[in-house]
Amino acid sequence: MCQLLGMNCNVPTDICFSFEGFRRRGGDTDHHRDGWGIGFFEDRGCRLFLDYQPSAISPIAELVRNYPIKSTNVIAHIRKATVGEVSLANTHPFRRELWGRYWVFAHNGDVKDPPRLDGHRFRPVGNTDSEHMFCWLLERLAERFVDFPAEAELFAVLRELAADLAQRGVVNFMLSNGQWLAAHCSTRLHYIVRQAPFGCAHLVDNDITVDFSEYTTQRDLVSVIATQPLTDNEVWTPMAPGELLIFRDGMPMRP
Amino acid sequence: MCQLLGMNCNVPTDICFSFEGFRRRGGDTDHHRDGWGIGFFEDRGCRLFLDYQPSAISPIAELVRNYPIKSTNVIAHIRKATVGEVSLANTHPFRRELWGRYWVFAHNGDVKDPPRLDGHRFRPVGNTDSEHMFCWLLERLAERFVDFPAEAELFAVLRELAADLAQRGVVNFMLSNGQWLAAHCSTRLHYIVRQAPFGCAHLVDNDITVDFSEYTTQRDLVSVIATQPLTDNEVWTPMAPGELLIFRDGMPMRP
Repeated sequence: MCQLLGMNCNVPTDICFSFEGFRRRGGDTDHHRDGWGIGFFEDRGCRLFLDYQPSAISPIAELVRNYPIKSTNVIAHIRKATVGEVSLANTHPFRRELWGRYWVFAHNGDVKDPPRLDGHRFRPVGNTDSEHMFCWLLERLAERFVDFPAEAELFAVLRELAADLAQRGVVNFMLSNGQWLAAHCSTRLHYIVRQAPFGCAHLVDNDITVDFSEYTTQRDLVSVIATQPLTDNEVWTPMAPGELLIFRDGMPMRP
Repeated sequence: MCQLLGMNCNVPTDICFSFEGFRRRGGDTDHHRDGWGIGFFEDRGCRLFLDYQPSAISPIAELVRNYPIKSTNVIAHIRKATVGEVSLANTHPFRRELWGRYWVFAHNGDVKDPPRLDGHRFRPVGNTDSEHMFCWLLERLAERFVDFPAEAELFAVLRELAADLAQRGVVNFMLSNGQWLAAHCSTRLHYIVRQAPFGCAHLVDNDITVDFSEYTTQRDLVSVIATQPLTDNEVWTPMAPGELLIFRDGMPMRP
């Protein structure tokens, strides 16, 4: 299996602290050592950093940990390969463009019987069940809507599609187009919303504490979503199996 | 205007030496300081590094310069913004997926009258003429072929499309799908094919010399393509206006 990390905020925020804990699980405090990746949205732009080296020792992970990229939507993934060999093509997150926006997707779980890809528009480059599902999902969206629909419509379809996928196996996933971040829980996802008054947080995976009040304003809202809580002195909310949340401007909502 | 750098080889090779010279032109030896990017193909996988900081000082460029990523197809770009503001969404190279392969594109030049985008499949995320042309190009390919055609057919269409674009302005571009690298010259592109017996090369933009014979075997073929020659003690071949070359396994051919 793998682990997921996501962040959604109302002001561009760096993810250095959370990423430092998360990346230790890729070969140090945990065994997810078959590559890792992280995608940052900055306005409409998006950059992905990918490596098939374990995140605990990857020089690119070292850069990401030390280079504060300010973003409102981030998705990261550390991999323990189950379907598909260890390679760059199989490294999450995956990215495609739809309706003139980038879409980024990462998945934790196993799907033995993924839905058939009957379209021609989105095709997997690697051979993971995860990228396959991402392509299927975008193909369905592209089929239903020629252009960006109203959000209520979009989220309703997303809920249908997530429910369909969830019937086929374990599908914890995160999806973002830079405007919001969707998190779907099959078995295990936790989140926390940090807001004023901000306090101190201490990592589970490394003895590091940060005082968020030094880096934030009263108005900041920062949601962090992770397979397992990243800090040991804060209260994380477990998501329920089958639950889909849309995080926007740092707050979760039920679509 | 901007500058382009490409590499195509018959064995995975790192681009650290060439990139060190090239990236100096982004804010140090030259004025292309409005962001930069580089895309590496590794088998079917592909990773892009992008930054809107000048490549001469970008921490990501520093990483790329020191982290020897072995690749058979690389495309890099340093930007001097003409169309579209300085932003991540406008930073080359651009990437899309077609027929289950990633495609990477970078452009140097100006096109006042880009062809109309009449399809729905590929849409620009940013607002450069370059990404617009890339989308148009992929849309045409997707329209003509449902799946990968025979290469002769593909290259013939590519030649048509490049000629069409070239009538509309200055279109120096590089395009790769990881199997080969296409370079089209409107005004300025040079290339060199390095092969045995390998010798020493000295950068134009930094006083660094490398002895390629220490890093290569007798069978290696490495083509480097750049807007302006990167070394001052080797003979680079200028491409002719209107010329399209396909580099494959380290050698150029006329499609």
